[in-house]
Amino acid sequence: MIADAGRELAALGWTPATSSNFSMRLDPSHVAVTVSGRDKGKLGAEDIMVVDLDNQPVATTARPSAETALHTQIYRRFADVGAVLHTHSRAQSVASRLFAEAGAVRFEGWELQKAIAGHSTHESVLDLPVFPNTQDMSVLVGQIDAWLDAGKPLHGYLINGHGIYAWGVDMAEARRHLEAFEFLLNCELDLRRLSS
Amino acid sequence: MIADAGRELAALGWTPATSSNFSMRLDPSHVAVTVSGRDKGKLGAEDIMVVDLDNQPVATTARPSAETALHTQIYRRFADVGAVLHTHSRAQSVASRLFAEAGAVRFEGWELQKAIAGHSTHESVLDLPVFPNTQDMSVLVGQIDAWLDAGKPLHGYLINGHGIYAWGVDMAEARRHLEAFEFLLNCELDLRRLSS
Amino acid sequence: MIADAGRELAALGWTPATSSNFSMRLDPSHVAVTVSGRDKGKLGAEDIMVVDLDNQPVATTARPSAETALHTQIYRRFADVGAVLHTHSRAQSVASRLFAEAGAVRFEGWELQKAIAGHSTHESVLDLPVFPNTQDMSVLVGQIDAWLDAGKPLHGYLINGHGIYAWGVDMAEARRHLEAFEFLLNCELDLRRLSS
Amino acid sequence: MIADAGRELAALGWTPATSSNFSMRLDPSHVAVTVSGRDKGKLGAEDIMVVDLDNQPVATTARPSAETALHTQIYRRFADVGAVLHTHSRAQSVASRLFAEAGAVRFEGWELQKAIAGHSTHESVLDLPVFPNTQDMSVLVGQIDAWLDAGKPLHGYLINGHGIYAWGVDMAEARRHLEAFEFLLNCELDLRRLSS
Repeated sequence: MIADAGRELAALGWTPATSSNFSMRLDPSHVAVTVSGRDKGKLGAEDIMVVDLDNQPVATTARPSAETALHTQIYRRFADVGAVLHTHSRAQSVASRLFAEAGAVRFEGWELQKAIAGHSTHESVLDLPVFPNTQDMSVLVGQIDAWLDAGKPLHGYLINGHGIYAWGVDMAEARRHLEAFEFLLNCELDLRRLSS
Repeated sequence: MIADAGRELAALGWTPATSSNFSMRLDPSHVAVTVSGRDKGKLGAEDIMVVDLDNQPVATTARPSAETALHTQIYRRFADVGAVLHTHSRAQSVASRLFAEAGAVRFEGWELQKAIAGHSTHESVLDLPVFPNTQDMSVLVGQIDAWLDAGKPLHGYLINGHGIYAWGVDMAEARRHLEAFEFLLNCELDLRRLSS
Repeated sequence: MIADAGRELAALGWTPATSSNFSMRLDPSHVAVTVSGRDKGKLGAEDIMVVDLDNQPVATTARPSAETALHTQIYRRFADVGAVLHTHSRAQSVASRLFAEAGAVRFEGWELQKAIAGHSTHESVLDLPVFPNTQDMSVLVGQIDAWLDAGKPLHGYLINGHGIYAWGVDMAEARRHLEAFEFLLNCELDLRRLSS
Repeated sequence: MIADAGRELAALGWTPATSSNFSMRLDPSHVAVTVSGRDKGKLGAEDIMVVDLDNQPVATTARPSAETALHTQIYRRFADVGAVLHTHSRAQSVASRLFAEAGAVRFEGWELQKAIAGHSTHESVLDLPVFPNTQDMSVLVGQIDAWLDAGKPLHGYLINGHGIYAWGVDMAEARRHLEAFEFLLNCELDLRRLSS
């Protein structure tokens, strides 16, 4: 299922130049995750490895991507999450730069907000935070923990100049969330272009 | 035929995150319509149900989408309509926001207006109304009834922040109308970007 | 070959809502041309008819598109032309509106101008005229005859709010010319967006 | 492998109207390169020829593209380069025009800069130079030699109004570099549109 997601998301152009990574929960304390640096449109069995929730490889000598720590954080913090997707589309990258200073993209008045679990009306407000980029994953993990510890809702997030993380109870919901965020980001960018 | 339309419209990216729904008239008082929340690119027999023109399911325990009421309204008001398509493209969503205050998108001077039944020249004027969004379908149905009762022509409509409804005497004409509106909306948005 | 061109150009979205038409020369005085109103992505033998250079159908009861007169004009005026393509992309339609007042789109400094037969350097100037739209084909034919009678070079043209006509000695060259114009129009529109 | 790259890059629309060319090193002094003017989406064995590093055809009567001189220059200057790709996308062409006066596109703050060999953080600066276009290849070769002789880093370059050259130790790295530059150029153009 990770390979299917990879092939379909790569075809959309959301995983340029071997970027992006995907994971699924195997049991309460183990996760299957893509190996660093592989072409996400052509994933085979050897491109996926198992780690525990402390990012330790299990039964493999493969190297997990440094970004694996961001996946396992989501599985640790949300017991019901079954899949995490990190992609890197043009809209995700550009929006992260434009909204970095504001700290979040705010969606309001879009019917498609209802595609995010727990949202039943376009009249609600949906915030997608933008965290500063850093090559030090522990700093990123700390920022996201701080957001969650403050009790703020989190359905996905952007990293500045980088891409998006989205998740769901299973791969189907994770993909629905990812598609909805991508669509909403494109709409917000279009509105900004057209309203100026 | 509903599944074919779904697969082809999903491939165009007009049905993000399980949004959108499609229907065809079966006889003067029954309609086949997509079940709520299914992936529109992968529709099977179990994803399509039958309702009567009062939105009551026939011979099924499946739940019709709340938006089914907007489909049956069109079949009730136009005896010759055979297919209704509701999609949710980026251009449809963005244009609905930009033209919501004006209440309609006005097309003028485009050859492709001739693709809408009853229009034989680019010199005519074609209005695509934008209705305010609400989660209460009876309010939406009332707005559309009011438009029609006022005797205004209606070949399709947008809902603000949401998407489009288009229809035709059969699925081929409904798709031609939908394609034409999508094309014209994109052209109007491009002109607006380029003329500012 | 007309069906192949149709399928590939339709896949690019350049033939929305059954618009567009294609033709090839069969002999000095006969042309195969698409029948009016067919889906250009799914052309079969019954969707193509033969006309003479006076637009009279040969051995068929099918109705030629009114725009057939614009195809036969090109075959009459250019003895070496073997294929004519009329499409209707978003860039073609939008550019025709933006440059209608100027009367032409002028390309200068693009390497891809070399894809147009007879242009061997990006330093030349290439004009693509925009003619006013009308439902009266004889008026359009007259405008194009006047342009040619004035001795101006013509490698293709736009009709305002409508689309493009391009041609070549055979289908391969006609498609290369069409692709080059589409590319150059998109580049000019992008530059205009980005330079404002 | 050249044919595979051609088919996939053509499908992305980066090789319009038979433009673009691709090469791979065969041994220290020979290179396989595409023959001039072929459709890059449908390359066969007869569309690829061998030249030495002085651009002389080997065992063939086919004519190498004038641009072959730009490929062999890269193989001469970088002993570890195994593949060179020249494409011609809309973003590459438009960006070359916009940044021609500045002389380079500067990328800063994008995670995807890490896809370029030797860049391990988004905090580095990556310059993609833009050289003036000319039909005289020896002038172009001289400009690029001057850049390299000045000791400036070079991972790829644009030619004004034309396209991009990118390369890598093998075809996979060359494609990763090309994809990364295309993505970064699109992001920069989007930011410019949205920030004005």
